[in-house]
Amino acid sequence: MTFRARHLLGIEQLAPSEITTLLDQAESYVELNQRTVKHADALAGMTQINMFFENSTRTQASFELAGKRLGADVMNMSVAHSSVKKGETLIDTALTLNAMHPDLLIVRHPHSGAVNLLAEKVNCAVINAGDGRHEHPTQALLDALTIRRAKGRLHRLTIAICGDIAHSRVARSNLILLGKMENRLRLIGPRTLMPAGVADLGCEVYEDMHEGLKGADVVMMLRLQRERMDGGFIPSEREYFHRWGLDPEKLALAKPDAIVMHPGPMNRGVEIDGTIADDINRSVIQDQVEMGVAVRMAAMDLLARNLRAERGRALAGPGLWDGDHG
Amino acid sequence: MTFRARHLLGIEQLAPSEITTLLDQAESYVELNQRTVKHADALAGMTQINMFFENSTRTQASFELAGKRLGADVMNMSVAHSSVKKGETLIDTALTLNAMHPDLLIVRHPHSGAVNLLAEKVNCAVINAGDGRHEHPTQALLDALTIRRAKGRLHRLTIAICGDIAHSRVARSNLILLGKMENRLRLIGPRTLMPAGVADLGCEVYEDMHEGLKGADVVMMLRLQRERMDGGFIPSEREYFHRWGLDPEKLALAKPDAIVMHPGPMNRGVEIDGTIADDINRSVIQDQVEMGVAVRMAAMDLLARNLRAERGRALAGPGLWDGDHG
Amino acid sequence: MTFRARHLLGIEQLAPSEITTLLDQAESYVELNQRTVKHADALAGMTQINMFFENSTRTQASFELAGKRLGADVMNMSVAHSSVKKGETLIDTALTLNAMHPDLLIVRHPHSGAVNLLAEKVNCAVINAGDGRHEHPTQALLDALTIRRAKGRLHRLTIAICGDIAHSRVARSNLILLGKMENRLRLIGPRTLMPAGVADLGCEVYEDMHEGLKGADVVMMLRLQRERMDGGFIPSEREYFHRWGLDPEKLALAKPDAIVMHPGPMNRGVEIDGTIADDINRSVIQDQVEMGVAVRMAAMDLLARNLRAERGRALAGPGLWDGDHG
Repeated sequence: MTFRARHLLGIEQLAPSEITTLLDQAESYVELNQRTVKHADALAGMTQINMFFENSTRTQASFELAGKRLGADVMNMSVAHSSVKKGETLIDTALTLNAMHPDLLIVRHPHSGAVNLLAEKVNCAVINAGDGRHEHPTQALLDALTIRRAKGRLHRLTIAICGDIAHSRVARSNLILLGKMENRLRLIGPRTLMPAGVADLGCEVYEDMHEGLKGADVVMMLRLQRERMDGGFIPSEREYFHRWGLDPEKLALAKPDAIVMHPGPMNRGVEIDGTIADDINRSVIQDQVEMGVAVRMAAMDLLARNLRAERGRALAGPGLWDGDHG
Repeated sequence: MTFRARHLLGIEQLAPSEITTLLDQAESYVELNQRTVKHADALAGMTQINMFFENSTRTQASFELAGKRLGADVMNMSVAHSSVKKGETLIDTALTLNAMHPDLLIVRHPHSGAVNLLAEKVNCAVINAGDGRHEHPTQALLDALTIRRAKGRLHRLTIAICGDIAHSRVARSNLILLGKMENRLRLIGPRTLMPAGVADLGCEVYEDMHEGLKGADVVMMLRLQRERMDGGFIPSEREYFHRWGLDPEKLALAKPDAIVMHPGPMNRGVEIDGTIADDINRSVIQDQVEMGVAVRMAAMDLLARNLRAERGRALAGPGLWDGDHG
Repeated sequence: MTFRARHLLGIEQLAPSEITTLLDQAESYVELNQRTVKHADALAGMTQINMFFENSTRTQASFELAGKRLGADVMNMSVAHSSVKKGETLIDTALTLNAMHPDLLIVRHPHSGAVNLLAEKVNCAVINAGDGRHEHPTQALLDALTIRRAKGRLHRLTIAICGDIAHSRVARSNLILLGKMENRLRLIGPRTLMPAGVADLGCEVYEDMHEGLKGADVVMMLRLQRERMDGGFIPSEREYFHRWGLDPEKLALAKPDAIVMHPGPMNRGVEIDGTIADDINRSVIQDQVEMGVAVRMAAMDLLARNLRAERGRALAGPGLWDGDHG
């Protein structure tokens, strides 16, 4: 096994072999989740805390189910009710939680870099469940698993990521992962929704969907996130759909067996036509959700193994307490 | 065993023998819940998701405890935080959840028929925890179990349902269930709170409590649900209590051993006098809550058995994966 | 074992030997929580309900983890969504919950005495998680365990409690506990934040931090709770910090090995200087959080034992049902 990380903070830090190890592990959990009795004991007796400083029912649910199916004691910390409102700093909140001895901390935060900062302060494994515009590594991993299962490989594919790239950590983590695995990447969207410095990302950039989709194996649509837009030109939903929404006519330009992805929740009729979303021959959108639980189980399982190994090494040192055999 | 349903969407679809099977099964859980160690493994390794699009602390708590005591992994989806707010459709939310492989989905929704619609889209067993003014089957079943235990039978009883019938799915499901079991049903309440077409329901209708309560074995009070009233005449609380609130004088008209029921939460002094609610010789209101947990355990247990049988049959077909023995 | 209580409603009712029993039991859980697999079965098959009528992420999380690590089925009742909003009385809510057969009920309520009232109505063990300005017994117990571990004893210490005494149930429970264990107690703070009748509490009262801290073994800072202040003089945060905030210069007046405590969440720069909070040689603030989980596990374990014994005695009586061996 080549997965040696202590935390899963981003795709940036992962080697291609680590990505492959993670996806291979996830495959076994895909199978487990299809059973009626879907339980493993990889996290039995361990404590997982989900700490979402930004609401995300879907991602939190995926992590919660993943942990429960692995036997962890899972606790959701509600942000709306939290001490954060009483003026406590992020670091104090992290130290407080850390003192309760969690083993896995799943963190979503509106500010880029907040999760990395938090990870430096705690003794447990931290998974970034999305921080600002920075990274959302488990989303990129579940997308990768979905692509690998649909296309039979995860390299030398032409992958078009379309829409609001600038505000999307999903796009960013996907670009890094798919680039590491040696795919041909295209970004398509209005110039106002392209990040600065996009030319340095090593991918082709298109404003015209018709050009960008030509010959694509994978069409990855993004959610139009009006809530993240701070000023600047925003097209109307109707105008946006006309130019950058995925409809049958535009999709016809991609390869005949191209798959369609969307991280959800979808704005039907804004970034994607409903008929495409529902076309089980093209859309793998439900598969993405299914892979999400499996990938998160794999990530937590592998991090927990590393945590146990690390604690075992600490105990093997001279003069240390040897009680960790419970 | 005669319970063969895939979902529990309403009382309408149940045969009397299925109702009896369900109540008999619930009796064993009444006993289990009275122990200090109250655990069975009927749902071990299975996933239950509570999806309440309308708040109901009491009903959600009852389902949550029922699932946990049967060993399920239980997850509550908070509506207030959900993707629904981001514009996702009910069907997309259902498909997303379905992709996470729940085994039991417990759904409350403000619109009549929404739960049936959702049940068509998913692979798991669905329980309707209340949809609009349509049905609330587990409430009717818990009421039936409470009556059967108090009166020794569930047929040939005179049962008066009093109050805001028009807005009440509780009344509707109870009418159907108690009618199927061959009881004599009376509806009592102001004309403005009677549903249209009440004459076709096969029950006697009274506006005067004094007439309607005469000789009743069971007096079932309903909550005055001001939050559901959309226009029309609404009496003041004082006036309402005077005419339709249950007080000792009115209750004296029922049989001497008549029991008093209320689905809760109660408005003391509006639809029921506090002294009656607290009279342990007449009120079975706490029993209703207790039966609620047992009935939900029974319903989930029976649905899970049918789900396992159905999946087993699917696996026994030619060329299918046979991994469901975990 | 000398712990014989049915509920843990306050420190007032506890004998010194009961406090010692509880702290001794907690020590074993401190050790368990430091393991990777941190599970005991003291509450296996039992139901714990957390009922917080006042938000407290930190305390609720501590009780939730404590229960889950002991194997209980834990359910959080959200107040914001509860029937209380529909006009249900506290007693009706209690009776409803009681009918669901919880074994342990953890209650926080904004009104002093509400938890005692509720405990009279239910069949299970109740722990007061803070009621108004009255008591917060598990906080006092976790503070006691922290002090005992840091100082090697829990008697004949000079302990200064500083800040907003008047609004603090933490201060009140600590005063009672530390008094019972025969320590020398000092209260320091502005006169406007001293409770009425403070002279009768058997402790020394200071307005000047410099005088009050002299020779203290333990310096316990309190949170300035502006949200609880109803009128009266409130100093500005800057003024407050200048006169009653703990800074290195003031702390230098205490004993050289004095420890610094704070119940959290902290207002850095208001009641405590950040450098002191972070000084691992003086601050035991993170230890307090850690001891919190262990003390709550101990309290629930001991109450559950008493509950089982009580139910066993009831069953041993003539003519009673003997089914409680599940």
